[in-house]
Amino acid sequence: MDEDILYHLDLGTKTHNLPAMFGDVKFVCVGGSPNRMKAFAQFMHKELRLEGDGEDIEDICAGTDRYCMFKTGPVLSVSHGMGIPSISIMLHELIKLLHHAHCCDVTIIRIGTSGGIGIAPGSVVITDTAVDSFFKPRFEQVILDNVVTRSTELDKELANDLFNCSREIPNVPTLIGHTMCTYDFYEGQGRLDGALCSFSREKKLDYLKRAYRAGVRNIEMESTVFAAMCGLCGLRAAVVCVTLLDRLESDQINLSHDVLVEYQQRPQLLISNFIKKQLGLCDQMS
Amino acid sequence: MDEDILYHLDLGTKTHNLPAMFGDVKFVCVGGSPNRMKAFAQFMHKELRLEGDGEDIEDICAGTDRYCMFKTGPVLSVSHGMGIPSISIMLHELIKLLHHAHCCDVTIIRIGTSGGIGIAPGSVVITDTAVDSFFKPRFEQVILDNVVTRSTELDKELANDLFNCSREIPNVPTLIGHTMCTYDFYEGQGRLDGALCSFSREKKLDYLKRAYRAGVRNIEMESTVFAAMCGLCGLRAAVVCVTLLDRLESDQINLSHDVLVEYQQRPQLLISNFIKKQLGLCDQMS
Repeated sequence: MDEDILYHLDLGTKTHNLPAMFGDVKFVCVGGSPNRMKAFAQFMHKELRLEGDGEDIEDICAGTDRYCMFKTGPVLSVSHGMGIPSISIMLHELIKLLHHAHCCDVTIIRIGTSGGIGIAPGSVVITDTAVDSFFKPRFEQVILDNVVTRSTELDKELANDLFNCSREIPNVPTLIGHTMCTYDFYEGQGRLDGALCSFSREKKLDYLKRAYRAGVRNIEMESTVFAAMCGLCGLRAAVVCVTLLDRLESDQINLSHDVLVEYQQRPQLLISNFIKKQLGLCDQMS
Repeated sequence: MDEDILYHLDLGTKTHNLPAMFGDVKFVCVGGSPNRMKAFAQFMHKELRLEGDGEDIEDICAGTDRYCMFKTGPVLSVSHGMGIPSISIMLHELIKLLHHAHCCDVTIIRIGTSGGIGIAPGSVVITDTAVDSFFKPRFEQVILDNVVTRSTELDKELANDLFNCSREIPNVPTLIGHTMCTYDFYEGQGRLDGALCSFSREKKLDYLKRAYRAGVRNIEMESTVFAAMCGLCGLRAAVVCVTLLDRLESDQINLSHDVLVEYQQRPQLLISNFIKKQLGLCDQMS
């Protein structure tokens, strides 16, 4: 192609010097909420002791309201909205961006929120394998009118490195487990409180308990396509989500604002520590 | 339930007086982009000749960055992000909101952007039936680990009323046709320019031409679940999308900013005229 327009990022190969803007990126952190990804970028700015005030950090995708993107040193922080289709659009354009910018050895980590199964709210789950609603480690991609099944394996070594890193953070229960990825927050996750619900509390609990027995420890809405696309494109990838409730106990998230904010910072703290270690910045900083 | 927290809207039955806030809503317009739905609310404010300056209209969901919501008289304007999962979360919570607020006789219209097939860019497509990637008028909802097939019929009378309304707007080609809804913008819509692509230009064109012969005139990413959920919940529903390109000609959207803005206003203008007619405001205003 003569020109590549990354439409949903409002970037392009003719309008932007992508190698100059992004050539030094080594870590990409993605998450659903634009505000949370901005807060993460500001946090990384402080943690990496970069010059200037991180508070006025610029949204690189300010020309569009589809996604937000912030850069702090070698760390890119990008929002992806909610659900498989939304993150897949962002990943297609992000992966092309990294290619056009000649980035190499990039690690990509999704830091998100999720519902837990059988674990305390506030726990952090590092995903070993993303599974679908049928507890299978696969992502079904419709290509034209064919269904192609893709692997959802994530980088085991990276997951272990992250878990080891978590042991140094006090008071944050962290574990490795399967993460279930659904297309829907209500009926698809067995919630009884949606606008539509056709099953009983017993059926719900039976489903969630079967998920638990299959190794699932949390449920979110992006991990299978994230694992599949990053795997096919050769990116070292991890998924680290905090749980906001235990779905065996309730369906509604009713944490206070302060507790919610503190929980959402837990994956950020873990990833920040991991990145500082990888950059060899830990000793001189602690 | 004692309390219903509409988590992704940052509203709730105990924290907000939903009947007072929303009881008079008769029209709900939804679209992917927060900025576009704010612009639509400001436009409706002017068109309905409401008091005050529409420029500083308040985001009712300002406490969350998942969705935006604006109210101008009996018209609610809500963003839904991109893709089936994202719009389905919003619809669950919106439909519960309308129920808690005791709203009745509500019409809901998605105003969006799309890729056209075999029609000029800038055309407005009023959907008669939403179809999936296999050109079938169905939405497959995963409930626990069962797949349930739902109808994607839309209100034929409403579609015809909208089409009649469009005849009064000069220079905007408008038609009624099938709308294909996919889970993916790149591989799922036969684009050759994604980070991953495993098919030829010939296969792409064969697929899009088969879609055309099946009656599909545009492609987007939300209409099937929108039609299915609104249908099941008894809401009169329509989908009105402008096309930004002809997919038989290209994959990339490279309209100038001004043309893009003008195209995106076309469904808004049509819906504004329709709402004014329904409210009996047309004669005294024209």
